Amino acid sequence: MTDSATASADGRVDQAIDEKVRSAQAAALDLANVDNDERTRALHAIADAIDDNREMIQEANAVDVAAGEKQLEAGEYSQALVDRLKLSAAKLDSIVEMVRSVAEQDDPLGTTLDARELDEDLELYKVAVPIGVIGTVFESRPDALAQIAALALKSGNSVMLKGGSEASESNRVLYDLIEEATADVDAIPAGWAQLVEARADVTAMLEMDEEIDLLMPRGSSEFVQYIQENTSIPVLGHTEGICHVYVDREADLAMAVDVAFDAKVQYPAVCNAVETLLIHESVAAEFLPEITARYAESDVEIRADEATREIVGDHVSLQAATEADWSTEYGDLIVSISVVDSLSAALAHITEYSSKHTESILTADADRAGRFMRQLDSASVFHNASTRFSDGYRFGLGAEVGISTGKIHARGPVGLEGLTTYKYLLEGDGQLVATYAGENPRPFTHEPFEGEWTPGRLSSRSNRQ
Amino acid sequence: MTDSATASADGRVDQAIDEKVRSAQAAALDLANVDNDERTRALHAIADAIDDNREMIQEANAVDVAAGEKQLEAGEYSQALVDRLKLSAAKLDSIVEMVRSVAEQDDPLGTTLDARELDEDLELYKVAVPIGVIGTVFESRPDALAQIAALALKSGNSVMLKGGSEASESNRVLYDLIEEATADVDAIPAGWAQLVEARADVTAMLEMDEEIDLLMPRGSSEFVQYIQENTSIPVLGHTEGICHVYVDREADLAMAVDVAFDAKVQYPAVCNAVETLLIHESVAAEFLPEITARYAESDVEIRADEATREIVGDHVSLQAATEADWSTEYGDLIVSISVVDSLSAALAHITEYSSKHTESILTADADRAGRFMRQLDSASVFHNASTRFSDGYRFGLGAEVGISTGKIHARGPVGLEGLTTYKYLLEGDGQLVATYAGENPRPFTHEPFEGEWTPGRLSSRSNRQ
Repeated sequence: MTDSATASADGRVDQAIDEKVRSAQAAALDLANVDNDERTRALHAIADAIDDNREMIQEANAVDVAAGEKQLEAGEYSQALVDRLKLSAAKLDSIVEMVRSVAEQDDPLGTTLDARELDEDLELYKVAVPIGVIGTVFESRPDALAQIAALALKSGNSVMLKGGSEASESNRVLYDLIEEATADVDAIPAGWAQLVEARADVTAMLEMDEEIDLLMPRGSSEFVQYIQENTSIPVLGHTEGICHVYVDREADLAMAVDVAFDAKVQYPAVCNAVETLLIHESVAAEFLPEITARYAESDVEIRADEATREIVGDHVSLQAATEADWSTEYGDLIVSISVVDSLSAALAHITEYSSKHTESILTADADRAGRFMRQLDSASVFHNASTRFSDGYRFGLGAEVGISTGKIHARGPVGLEGLTTYKYLLEGDGQLVATYAGENPRPFTHEPFEGEWTPGRLSSRSNRQ
Repeated sequence: MTDSATASADGRVDQAIDEKVRSAQAAALDLANVDNDERTRALHAIADAIDDNREMIQEANAVDVAAGEKQLEAGEYSQALVDRLKLSAAKLDSIVEMVRSVAEQDDPLGTTLDARELDEDLELYKVAVPIGVIGTVFESRPDALAQIAALALKSGNSVMLKGGSEASESNRVLYDLIEEATADVDAIPAGWAQLVEARADVTAMLEMDEEIDLLMPRGSSEFVQYIQENTSIPVLGHTEGICHVYVDREADLAMAVDVAFDAKVQYPAVCNAVETLLIHESVAAEFLPEITARYAESDVEIRADEATREIVGDHVSLQAATEADWSTEYGDLIVSISVVDSLSAALAHITEYSSKHTESILTADADRAGRFMRQLDSASVFHNASTRFSDGYRFGLGAEVGISTGKIHARGPVGLEGLTTYKYLLEGDGQLVATYAGENPRPFTHEPFEGEWTPGRLSSRSNRQ
């Protein structure tokens, strides 16, 4: 046992985190060049391995759940957390199905994004490639490990997998199955997926900006912010979802009631659920009694400004909204409501309080919709649709990597494309920059063309001539 | 004078940095929606203002240069720094020309990058938009201020401009001209460009991750690294350029001599110049005497491994390379040379020492070129061309924003596109997510189509029916 290795609780010798990261980095160079067929085959091997070892997975999971239930009794864990831990047969079905679905996605790699002739026999290609090594830290659901590993493999990236300690037994079994399944596919380099178990290793990973190319934390917005503030590695993550629905004076009010209801009630725990409704004053008297009654039927707690409370009166029980309500992500059956006197006032409110995730305007007026959609600096801005559509699957992006509240690299719902970058490949014939500089510089042609990069494209072309 | 304002040396009251940033942030929301015609017009107004006020600019510049020369005498500044400070008539010509050229670039905004029907009357558009507020910190050349301001304006971004203190007089005059010129174009919101002069304000900006969306530092790699390590704002920047040319056993050696010479000598001070030549052993005896003689004619200092020194012997004076040479960016007429016994050894050397900027293989063998280009994790990988082609202008990207050695968001030479992000716009007809969930979910169509977003597109379409 070397200095840099530690014995884990069950007696295995664990690699130190820096060895794991270097191993992932070495694997990434090879994985970047593994054909899509092989990556797809490896993903189906993972799905098979999970499908064939349900008993073993559920035994390990039972250990996590039992420990979780003890913590629940002690008042340390919530029932929701223990529920998320559980790998039921149905949950295992969905994991297997998810891995197969990622396997069958279009290959995000190798695509020529741009091809340009710089001059005769000097051709530039911009080609999609994996990012390299992705560091992930995720919540207690053990299905997250399988999902993140599958997305990384499909996109040709090595991945560091740090799950919640509550799920450590389940994660270890899932990780071992994934590792063994891909070890049997010759083309997949060993070391592409690394299990990280110690919290101290996360701290170490945050410092490894030479080796880790991207961090994807999942969890509370405080946790994601903590990661962002403690690393110089780029972070792809989602902090808050304070989403708004604005009911314009030109709204179809029947539609508005349905959309405002769907946006809150259809699934209130998620980031794209609406938190604040803004109502134009000229439709408030007609709209507010209807929507508040509808919300009340579904036990939605309503926090309203004074104008709303005056209009609704005693028909529905409303609490007075405080300043804090406008910047709170409830993630629950709670909504805040404010009356505004104009579209401009709605825009000002959203600009001040929004987390720039998703906003929706309900209006029949195209110009007012256009103003709303142009003026707001949010990742997703909708016209006459529920904020709940803001999702990679619904957007048709295929597998969803996550939702980004940053603006750089990937914004809003992120598909596999978000786990890729590009490189420039230039095929020349011995060209020198000196030829294109100085007194009588040769001009560039800079002509875009349709074509895929193949190595030695120019020489093979001249052979054909 | 408020607490948050300070008096500058010349008695003007300066806004505090947080006020400047908030002003830039407010302007960004409006600037995002200014038509390309107006942005172009404003850029020509800037070019005119610079062209019409050459005397005033040169007077201010003379103050900076005189101060710089005193520092030169005192041994604090280098001659190169003082040279970079000087705004000659020719330099002013090139600034005016550069601003006009940025003005005439294709509009990077508003483009529909993707359009997809999610279902009947539910259309998703991914549209290019500005990033928001860009914080820049740049070197002593005052032309950098005009260039960065022009790139920001063309791409619809507000910009914080912090130049070198050596150029403070020149920067102030250029900034005032830019601000006044755009103030005369009604569509351009006041506050879009902010001059930052105090070093403490840079430190403050690094903390403003809610207000500043992207940092673009320019300067030494130590400086860029310092910025990266002291902010949670995404950084678009360029650290080192340790570029390689590998002369393969299948290389056309006459071509190889020319390319290796061009890559080093044509302009040695820049990041895309080659620092290390790797030579396949089977062509070393023929190639090395030629290239070293050629380098010697141009006073290139050569640091060579033992194998190279044995082959070249006394014909050319060679220094012994040390381990540090392989990871040094000379930025000067110095090159390191090593003989390798295989393509694999070349790949291993580059993987270990490269800064992932630009590498080039010289070979007539397409398979070996393909292996080199696929296997290396560098932003630009070339076949039979000089590393010096790695440049936004030569790549045909139009105006160059910079070169990125990161992999996230933008990689390699970055054009105006690198100063944009996107937002998702969804045009619906009152759709609810509940319809697409639950027991009998309505399926999505997810059909890509060709089309540009226009507000209220669905309502206008149904009007036509």
